[in-house]
Amino acid sequence: MSAKIVTAGVLMIGDELLSGRTQDTNLRTIAKFLEPLGVQIREARILADDAETISNTVREFSDRFDYVFTTGGIGPTHDDITADAVASAFGRGISERADAIAELKTRYQDGELNAARRRMARIPDGASLIKNPVSQAPGFQTENVFTMAGVPQIMKGMLPDIEHRIEGGAKVYSRSVPAVGIGEGDAAAPLAEIETKYEGVSLGSYPYFTDAGRGVNFVARGRDESVLDAVEHELKDLVIELSEELK
Amino acid sequence: MSAKIVTAGVLMIGDELLSGRTQDTNLRTIAKFLEPLGVQIREARILADDAETISNTVREFSDRFDYVFTTGGIGPTHDDITADAVASAFGRGISERADAIAELKTRYQDGELNAARRRMARIPDGASLIKNPVSQAPGFQTENVFTMAGVPQIMKGMLPDIEHRIEGGAKVYSRSVPAVGIGEGDAAAPLAEIETKYEGVSLGSYPYFTDAGRGVNFVARGRDESVLDAVEHELKDLVIELSEELK
Repeated sequence: MSAKIVTAGVLMIGDELLSGRTQDTNLRTIAKFLEPLGVQIREARILADDAETISNTVREFSDRFDYVFTTGGIGPTHDDITADAVASAFGRGISERADAIAELKTRYQDGELNAARRRMARIPDGASLIKNPVSQAPGFQTENVFTMAGVPQIMKGMLPDIEHRIEGGAKVYSRSVPAVGIGEGDAAAPLAEIETKYEGVSLGSYPYFTDAGRGVNFVARGRDESVLDAVEHELKDLVIELSEELK
Repeated sequence: MSAKIVTAGVLMIGDELLSGRTQDTNLRTIAKFLEPLGVQIREARILADDAETISNTVREFSDRFDYVFTTGGIGPTHDDITADAVASAFGRGISERADAIAELKTRYQDGELNAARRRMARIPDGASLIKNPVSQAPGFQTENVFTMAGVPQIMKGMLPDIEHRIEGGAKVYSRSVPAVGIGEGDAAAPLAEIETKYEGVSLGSYPYFTDAGRGVNFVARGRDESVLDAVEHELKDLVIELSEELK
């Protein structure tokens, strides 16, 4: 079992995410993609379409995390500035690349490949392309930074060409135990006790409220599945105990 | 018309948001709450349950933005550390407060108000409470930072007691024009032209792909509604023109 902890940061780029116009779902997709690879997202940011902020944040995240994923801002319009910001973050030039034009030509006829669409072939110097089987305009990898589209279906389509480039780490497993009708405050003290007892396990409790009543989901996360099995057992006993007290 | 630009930053706190277990929806709720008040969200971050990161980021955001909103990490369990992190960000002490206990007592009988639940009455020194009509455990305001619950229904319930504390600014209006069947790349050049022509207007184009085909939504944002009306008119003409070309 590898003990290495591999980390990632995610940047979601676009004014529309901050104005409330668009609900991001990409973070969750990326998290679920990275989980089986043993890569943990440590921080995510939602940034406005501002070149300097994007560039500075890409630089900072590239230094802080093993991998960085960006979504959004690589389309054909004037507010698509992510490629330039990534180039600037690494002090690299950027220009229209033949390999990217070739990808676009599999989709667009010569007449359709106007100046706006050619913008999507501007790639930071030395970056490698990421295949886009949905709409062909490629993403790209610059050092440890993967730059992807913002439209969820297109972003998802790029992940298979990223997977083989990731050197994963220790996989984190989880066990989830539901506690219907239990209040989070009743479980807090025994929960903290269980966490103290098992090294390398982190316990979370996630309350919910529905028309049918309240409840909590306990989630144990850790790298050793046999330890997690023991924790799951204790959590189930705890739920039975708390349910008895409620009667 | 006030010309003042009022900004906000949002911090969503919790490992479960980064692991992909939970889909955040609070950012969008807060954005829609702030829009009519004339407050623009400039950046949002999703942070792990790490005291130092939360504390440093609260400090940074409090300096950079007019208002800061945090969600998550104020429940009764050991991983709820936001109150302590906010106190530390402002170099303030934190202790159990009588006014917060009084709020909890409207919900919990004496026997139910155990040590875990009393944790929810720990408030940074000098902060004022934010009413929680859903589950009573209060949020709190520390200088320009509003600390709210993470559970969406509870967070939403706290907003009415925040609204009267916000000094809003110039309201940003928007006009949305759908372009069914149009490719984003065909619209990019004329779109940039329209944006150049109207000062104070920002134009975005948001492509979508469904089973029924592709399309783009054009969104114009700005502070002057009469200018926006003119832009909307031009966008509608553009859609007609592009649709004609497709025939």
